[in-house]
Amino acid sequence: MSENKIPYKTYLDENEIPTKWYNMRADMKNKPAPLLNPGTLEPMTAEELAPVFCEELIAQELNNTDAYIDIPEEILDFYKMYRPSPLVRAYFLEKALDTPAKIYYKFEGNNTSGSHKLNSAIAQAYYAKKQGLKGVTTETGAGQWGTALSMACSYFGLDCKVYMVKVSYEQKPFRREVMRVYGADVTPSPSTTTEIGKRILEAHPGTTGSLGCAISEAVEVATHSEGYRYVLGSVLNQVLLHQSVIGLEAKAAFDKLGVKPDVIIGCAGGGSNLGGLIAPFMGEKLRGEADYRIIAVEPASCPSFTRGKFAYDFCDTGMVCPLAKMYTLGSGFIPSANHAGGLRYHGMSSTLSQLYHDGLMEAVSVEQTSVFAAAEQFARVEGILPAPESSHAIRAAIDEALKCKETGEEKTILFGLTGTGYFDMVAYQKYNDGEMSDYIPTDEDLEKGFAGLPKIDL
Amino acid sequence: MSENKIPYKTYLDENEIPTKWYNMRADMKNKPAPLLNPGTLEPMTAEELAPVFCEELIAQELNNTDAYIDIPEEILDFYKMYRPSPLVRAYFLEKALDTPAKIYYKFEGNNTSGSHKLNSAIAQAYYAKKQGLKGVTTETGAGQWGTALSMACSYFGLDCKVYMVKVSYEQKPFRREVMRVYGADVTPSPSTTTEIGKRILEAHPGTTGSLGCAISEAVEVATHSEGYRYVLGSVLNQVLLHQSVIGLEAKAAFDKLGVKPDVIIGCAGGGSNLGGLIAPFMGEKLRGEADYRIIAVEPASCPSFTRGKFAYDFCDTGMVCPLAKMYTLGSGFIPSANHAGGLRYHGMSSTLSQLYHDGLMEAVSVEQTSVFAAAEQFARVEGILPAPESSHAIRAAIDEALKCKETGEEKTILFGLTGTGYFDMVAYQKYNDGEMSDYIPTDEDLEKGFAGLPKIDL
Repeated sequence: MSENKIPYKTYLDENEIPTKWYNMRADMKNKPAPLLNPGTLEPMTAEELAPVFCEELIAQELNNTDAYIDIPEEILDFYKMYRPSPLVRAYFLEKALDTPAKIYYKFEGNNTSGSHKLNSAIAQAYYAKKQGLKGVTTETGAGQWGTALSMACSYFGLDCKVYMVKVSYEQKPFRREVMRVYGADVTPSPSTTTEIGKRILEAHPGTTGSLGCAISEAVEVATHSEGYRYVLGSVLNQVLLHQSVIGLEAKAAFDKLGVKPDVIIGCAGGGSNLGGLIAPFMGEKLRGEADYRIIAVEPASCPSFTRGKFAYDFCDTGMVCPLAKMYTLGSGFIPSANHAGGLRYHGMSSTLSQLYHDGLMEAVSVEQTSVFAAAEQFARVEGILPAPESSHAIRAAIDEALKCKETGEEKTILFGLTGTGYFDMVAYQKYNDGEMSDYIPTDEDLEKGFAGLPKIDL
Repeated sequence: MSENKIPYKTYLDENEIPTKWYNMRADMKNKPAPLLNPGTLEPMTAEELAPVFCEELIAQELNNTDAYIDIPEEILDFYKMYRPSPLVRAYFLEKALDTPAKIYYKFEGNNTSGSHKLNSAIAQAYYAKKQGLKGVTTETGAGQWGTALSMACSYFGLDCKVYMVKVSYEQKPFRREVMRVYGADVTPSPSTTTEIGKRILEAHPGTTGSLGCAISEAVEVATHSEGYRYVLGSVLNQVLLHQSVIGLEAKAAFDKLGVKPDVIIGCAGGGSNLGGLIAPFMGEKLRGEADYRIIAVEPASCPSFTRGKFAYDFCDTGMVCPLAKMYTLGSGFIPSANHAGGLRYHGMSSTLSQLYHDGLMEAVSVEQTSVFAAAEQFARVEGILPAPESSHAIRAAIDEALKCKETGEEKTILFGLTGTGYFDMVAYQKYNDGEMSDYIPTDEDLEKGFAGLPKIDL
């Protein structure tokens, strides 16, 4: 294969790391609906958000107009610890699939957090430090965000309190240890350390937890502790903004290679990786400069895009957070316990929800046994053991490449390989032992979640 | 820090991956002593080695004359999956230590085996496949070699049977799962699947195993199974040869940067990483072209270089393998069970042993709590959670950099960061819980090992 002109891995130089994040909302005709104050149903103001979030991050959250926002020097320095990340041509996978498609992936797993989450964690920790805070609280599902935030807080000398979804805490005992190496304090959620945690445990004894519950607990602790704020690893506009570094690097690398992708695929839980990966491509699409097929991939067991409602909903189970308009399964929705790994948030980024609603992107859902089959196929030929979350995108990319094989089309496919699966071996073991099953919620299951949607008409 | 001319990470281009391995022995005046047939005490011939090892690998093992050996195209293709590996300038660590020293590390952990072991695994699997074999057997300690070999065998469609040192098998349950993802068959050693395993279990019930035991079992299975050979991840000349890709890349990157290291530091268990890292630098030293201070770092609990004897010894506990002249603690030596992680081999590469004997390199031993302290300090500033093995080199590099701080010397230090510690969280947990202790064998402990040395006078 060595005669190929396109290298296996394309690295930008360090001085080519983007110096500005790109804010898709500036180019959206239909802006994402604003966050609402659950009491007044009026758009949340910066003042109202200030007890929960860091000031500069609130400004980014509410910014619908600036297309580019400078990345502070301190964050750029940190980015150089693990960025630029490689854009990989999946020659080995193409060969294994015997497809005419050209497959690329942007690999974000070459850092100890194991995923792209560090891109936003370091930004959020930086702004918290700049504001003179003592520490931050957060939730984590699969554990990648918690690890990333622990690393970022350790770097800036901030205290870090992590509420980890109980099922992940139990499935991934070593994740907690990595966070401890970075000095974080990790509590399985729901817990008895918060009022909301106690309430949830009373209502649902034995629950394995959900991101929605963990968010409620982390927010409660942040708002009741002097010098603390809450930070979130996905869903919010600010997070998609920070993650745009993924897409900007990918686009710059493609431009260097003289290649234009036809199809762009990302897994979607809250939308941070997908939103970051597609950002500059979607920007071109929004400005009418180019067209791309963009596909969100979600678990069939937590199908916010494909089976959710586009409605205002609470971001958390405890209903203490603002309301966001998004594709949602209802803030009370908890994925079946047989669901392995992340992508278990009940809602979806309001930016991505609007783009999906406006027909600017597609969504598919995939079942977990087929996701792990794709993960193993990928690991064996590309040499990277992928995270279950990332493997949703692998599944969809393989499916697209196999369609190309049928039609003979030489499409160029880009997918986001968000991270590695080294802490997901319980799930891999289950799959290898043939003990993994699929679960697709029934319409009745979903109706229960929808019944909890706030009764407002906007 | 962005005004620095030297980047954080230096990547060579893919077409700059070395196309030849470098064989230090060709430039050694005093060649390493030959392997001996334990029956005749004569040098082992290729014919005698053929039932155990692959043909081409035997040729490499016995080759003391060719300085450069071509890397086959198929192996170069595979190398492109994860190579070139970055040469990293440890700006963050330098700042944390407030040292005038310039610290670099060659990072080999950005692949799913988690270490440099893949460099030799893919070569050995290739030659096994080329010989038309069905499969290979091996031992693994910390699990990195087993994982690497599983990946390599999966790539070439070879069967892979791994004997894993029992204490590691128990401490690292998820390592086994990664190997299973790649289709390998993993057995904790000593086991009842071999005659030698049964004998060892009878003599030492409840033993936590050693690399020496696991080697004996793997060799027994290879020599008793049609179409199988035994492969080894360290110690042997052929392995150091394959690993020279590390040093060759590091040297090429330094040459590009116009930098010459003063001190080169590598951890040493059997010597594969150290031998690979230093290869081209030692070559210059042997040819009188340049001088470098070269330091091997080993655990105080398994101190082959610093407290072992330079003598002919068995490579395995079962005494079925050839005799090698090396620094050894005796083939019956088993490190204290409180020793976490790898670097637990009783002997040392005969090539490195000769170089050490001839005063061409130094050796130090370090205690494990100080190793984990260095590991955490490194993780917090450089963002990579290191393997315990690699952290021995980090410890020594930090110590050297701190000496520079005292003296004001601006030395350039290179160390080998062989891998990541994602599967070593039990050890990190022990350290963080304050439950890790140090153990230095007494002279009496060592005398027991030496008593088992073969009584031959050569």
